[in-house]
Amino acid sequence: MSLSYDKIKRFLFGEAFPTRAEIHERLDKVRALAIFASDPISSNAYATEAIMSVLILISASALYLTLPIALAVMTLVLLVVFSYTQTILHYPKGGGAYIVTKDNLGTTPSLFAAAALLIDYILTVSVSISAGVRAITSALPALYPYSVWLALLAIFLLSWINLRGIRESGSIFALPTYAFVGGVLLVVLIGLVRLFGVFGAPPPLAPAPHEVPGAAGSVSQFLFLWLIVRAFAAGCTALTGIEAISDGVAAFKQPEAKNAAQTMVAMGVIAMTLFVGITYVATHLHLIPYEAESILSQLTHAITGGIPGGGFIYAWVQFFTMMILILAANTGFQDFPRVSSFLAQDGFMPRWMQNRGDRLVYNYGITVLAVVASVIVVAFNANEIRMLPLYALGVMLGFTLSQLGMVKLFGKINKLKPGETAQTGVTTIHYEASAKWKRLLPAFGALVTFIVLVALTLTKFMEGAWVVALAIPLVVWMFRSIRSHYNAVAAELSVEDFDPSQMRCFADVVIIPMGDVHRGTLRAIRYARRFSDNVRVVAVSTNDETHARIQRRWERFSELTADCQLIIIDYEYRDILTPLVDYITGVTNQEYPGQLITVVVPEFVPESTWGHLLHNQTANILRVRLLGIENVVLIDVPYHVHKQTAQ
Amino acid sequence: MSLSYDKIKRFLFGEAFPTRAEIHERLDKVRALAIFASDPISSNAYATEAIMSVLILISASALYLTLPIALAVMTLVLLVVFSYTQTILHYPKGGGAYIVTKDNLGTTPSLFAAAALLIDYILTVSVSISAGVRAITSALPALYPYSVWLALLAIFLLSWINLRGIRESGSIFALPTYAFVGGVLLVVLIGLVRLFGVFGAPPPLAPAPHEVPGAAGSVSQFLFLWLIVRAFAAGCTALTGIEAISDGVAAFKQPEAKNAAQTMVAMGVIAMTLFVGITYVATHLHLIPYEAESILSQLTHAITGGIPGGGFIYAWVQFFTMMILILAANTGFQDFPRVSSFLAQDGFMPRWMQNRGDRLVYNYGITVLAVVASVIVVAFNANEIRMLPLYALGVMLGFTLSQLGMVKLFGKINKLKPGETAQTGVTTIHYEASAKWKRLLPAFGALVTFIVLVALTLTKFMEGAWVVALAIPLVVWMFRSIRSHYNAVAAELSVEDFDPSQMRCFADVVIIPMGDVHRGTLRAIRYARRFSDNVRVVAVSTNDETHARIQRRWERFSELTADCQLIIIDYEYRDILTPLVDYITGVTNQEYPGQLITVVVPEFVPESTWGHLLHNQTANILRVRLLGIENVVLIDVPYHVHKQTAQ
Repeated sequence: MSLSYDKIKRFLFGEAFPTRAEIHERLDKVRALAIFASDPISSNAYATEAIMSVLILISASALYLTLPIALAVMTLVLLVVFSYTQTILHYPKGGGAYIVTKDNLGTTPSLFAAAALLIDYILTVSVSISAGVRAITSALPALYPYSVWLALLAIFLLSWINLRGIRESGSIFALPTYAFVGGVLLVVLIGLVRLFGVFGAPPPLAPAPHEVPGAAGSVSQFLFLWLIVRAFAAGCTALTGIEAISDGVAAFKQPEAKNAAQTMVAMGVIAMTLFVGITYVATHLHLIPYEAESILSQLTHAITGGIPGGGFIYAWVQFFTMMILILAANTGFQDFPRVSSFLAQDGFMPRWMQNRGDRLVYNYGITVLAVVASVIVVAFNANEIRMLPLYALGVMLGFTLSQLGMVKLFGKINKLKPGETAQTGVTTIHYEASAKWKRLLPAFGALVTFIVLVALTLTKFMEGAWVVALAIPLVVWMFRSIRSHYNAVAAELSVEDFDPSQMRCFADVVIIPMGDVHRGTLRAIRYARRFSDNVRVVAVSTNDETHARIQRRWERFSELTADCQLIIIDYEYRDILTPLVDYITGVTNQEYPGQLITVVVPEFVPESTWGHLLHNQTANILRVRLLGIENVVLIDVPYHVHKQTAQ
Repeated sequence: MSLSYDKIKRFLFGEAFPTRAEIHERLDKVRALAIFASDPISSNAYATEAIMSVLILISASALYLTLPIALAVMTLVLLVVFSYTQTILHYPKGGGAYIVTKDNLGTTPSLFAAAALLIDYILTVSVSISAGVRAITSALPALYPYSVWLALLAIFLLSWINLRGIRESGSIFALPTYAFVGGVLLVVLIGLVRLFGVFGAPPPLAPAPHEVPGAAGSVSQFLFLWLIVRAFAAGCTALTGIEAISDGVAAFKQPEAKNAAQTMVAMGVIAMTLFVGITYVATHLHLIPYEAESILSQLTHAITGGIPGGGFIYAWVQFFTMMILILAANTGFQDFPRVSSFLAQDGFMPRWMQNRGDRLVYNYGITVLAVVASVIVVAFNANEIRMLPLYALGVMLGFTLSQLGMVKLFGKINKLKPGETAQTGVTTIHYEASAKWKRLLPAFGALVTFIVLVALTLTKFMEGAWVVALAIPLVVWMFRSIRSHYNAVAAELSVEDFDPSQMRCFADVVIIPMGDVHRGTLRAIRYARRFSDNVRVVAVSTNDETHARIQRRWERFSELTADCQLIIIDYEYRDILTPLVDYITGVTNQEYPGQLITVVVPEFVPESTWGHLLHNQTANILRVRLLGIENVVLIDVPYHVHKQTAQ
């Protein structure tokens, strides 16, 4: 049975990797980009539209502001990318917001950063999967009633791919990611060429099929400014997932930090090229956002209309948009387990979350994420629109804290003299000539992300952001409780001021609960007599007949049971465990207070798993109840049925 | 914690009863009728209609045959009641089809009878509950989407009431049962009075709102006869649940057999009075069955129309019809656990199904029934129409076998001389002067129920009866497998030819798996040294750092670890249990083959249930894996955190 379990495991997840194989499982930059950057790159499917949807509330003509706002978002993204590149180079063992904040701002801020990010990673999975499923059910409406099941299936598949190992999942994710980037890039290029008149200008677009909201009236200056800020904040959805690479530095091939930093920059450049490209073409085509068709789809339609192969390009972009929306969830699958393992190492999450499984991935973290994300998908009925107000707050809090941490770190570096080196809690810092100006960029970045955080919280508070605002401190409290539990346990088990002479005594008494006299109990009695002269066999009888039978059989084996005491408790309820437990508690409390007593349980092991169903689980339930009593050592003397040949 | 669990249990189910209280929990005849007869009495809600629905396939004028057929059904019911009364008197410890068949026809037929009845009891619950829920959702259509949930809730409530004890549930069920009987009886009486002209004849009925099917053409003679048989078979739905009292004789007040037999007769008389009464009035009012309104409702409408208080009587009958349809499920809750306990006593079902819980009811049987019935309700989407073809076959098979058993028993009694007494397998028989004619009645009954069984199987085979025809032998096979498992276990554990000198040896070796050197492991080492000189402490290290740390700490406690051997296994996978289990398997197979070796597991017990989540369940998983290896005695040395004061 154990063998076939192993076989199934190998079939599903592949051979176990030895720990030293870790270096072979590392990611090259091409795979790393696909695996970590799916979330920021997928943002291009909706980021431009997010800005336009707010601007249209001012008026249709306000849409000319889309490009400047997109450029502002791009600047912020590049600032954050710069900041994280510096983080990677200064924390080459992997870090991200949690480590940087812990090292520079202290434990409490770092726990807030970690809580915010973990919540956001869970939401990344729920939102991306639900959005992807919506794309599928839009194409195949017959599947709509099964949305929740499809979403759960997608989470299950993603978990499975991730459990098979990071390199393998990198290969699986590479195709859709690069196909999406290539397809959109091609569309943008054709768009630019056509806008400049080659092949003829694109055909005029059909007018938007409904009245443009807000286009009629004009808005006050204050509201205008507020809507600009909101449009900017909406565009900042393009920032989600940037953090991922900084947490996963350790997964890169050597030199880890350099490769990770280069991948980070490549990700920023690719994502922003697409973003600005889409925005430029969309605004120059005077596209208007409306419910029924996304801006990206309108754009692709308009640009590929009337050129050979246009239909194929349109289908390509649509299909891989759907794919990358689902795969964006993978950023959550990469980072949640990593950040959890950092926290587990510090004792703020269950210790087992730092363990890696047979395929060198954090299998517990992946499982916990899958379960929590599934619960959210079910709770929100796979409706990503209702989840969105909860989203992105965490990311912005993480960015703000992480960049503040970098400001502090550059402050320390600033104080070093040329050639000098110093040690922070986590890493080593060296003198850097350019530290002064390098410090300004994250400072400015932190300010902007903080403003976005405030704007997002204010606009979305009543729609659901309050849940996250409440959840973050709760999660921090949970971290602290777990840590204090571990501290208490460590103190209890510590051998620091341990005095062997103070160890608890073992009482010379053995109690054997017995259902009936049979080979299993006789074996247990024989075992107990080996090391104690005070063996008490306790049976519970619920009627006279049983009492007499036990007595009779006992006397038959007087040779084996010599010197043992038989105690039959007559009991008039059917729950025979209670008098047993009461007797044992009495012995430990009254006869041998403060000493350890021994209970021997004859354990009967059926030949198959089904066999267990046919027997009372009395021994198991007794064990659980006895574990709750202090000072009881428990001995299982097993008796295997059907495997037994000798006695 | 244990205390609060007890409190909750007491609150939900009441105080535990001592075994001797069983006699006080017995049922008087009034409660017994309510608790056992709800199924046969509830049949009156639809039995007349069932006959008419078949006859209408011939023609509307064929409905005059309803009364003769109903009288034939009544004769059969009285035959079966007579047969079961005799069963009760001859098997005063309770019996029913399983015991009677076992005692007279042998084990295999009795297992078929038991399988058939158990399946039917499960279906009784699923069908009755679903029918009751349909009655509720017909009245409140807004609840229709929640049918399955309502049905599950009803099953849950019925289980809960039954778990609280038989006498208490008898009191709860008495009111609706007698209210239904009283209400219908009143309607029938008023109907008879009005039919004979007092108060004026009932008002003419509105014509049936649709064409009567089949009323146009005429049918062949063969088809005519076949439809008569089918109409009779359909009427036999009134027989379901008659068996119940015979299984529950032991639940009656003393003298059990006499009280049970009287209750049986009362049940037959009451049920048949209602049945024939309803049929007589319905045919004389020329009612015609149609989908939208049941015959019972049409009848009540017609009869209570135009008399003072008529509306109230109508509402009363409708409400208690709904109630008794749900309560009919209780017959299943009474008999499934009892028949299961008979089978469990004989080793054909899991032994624990014969155990009674704190309230002296078969709580495992009730739970198993509730779970299986719930599964069926979900599978059939609480649609009782789709379940009906599966229903009633089992009952008829049970009746046929049980009555054949009685024929055989009377045969044995026949052979006795006056004053003589004999012993069958289960009961004592005496000479009876009237045994000869008493033998004829069950013989005739068995023939008729067999014909009905064949008719039902043929007509409903394709609609679903095949499932039951397949399930019965499968269940019998399951009974036999369970029994052979128990036989094998009994043989293995038997002390029949037990020779103490052949008992397996205990090897003088103790293995202690150790995660780290701490107070818990030191305590385990000290315990092991008490009874063995060959103590081996085994640690698994996955990196050099761990290896060195364990070695260092070990040397610090040389005083305690003297004479113990430390074995550190370096392992390059993360699954540390595998090398441990491999080491232990090696010791038991190679060093001490055929002897019992001892493994001491330092068990760390957190202060709360939540605490367990924060620790690797390594010790638990190790225990499960070691239980699978033969010849390993397992010792848990616990270390309670937070309760510990001394060491």
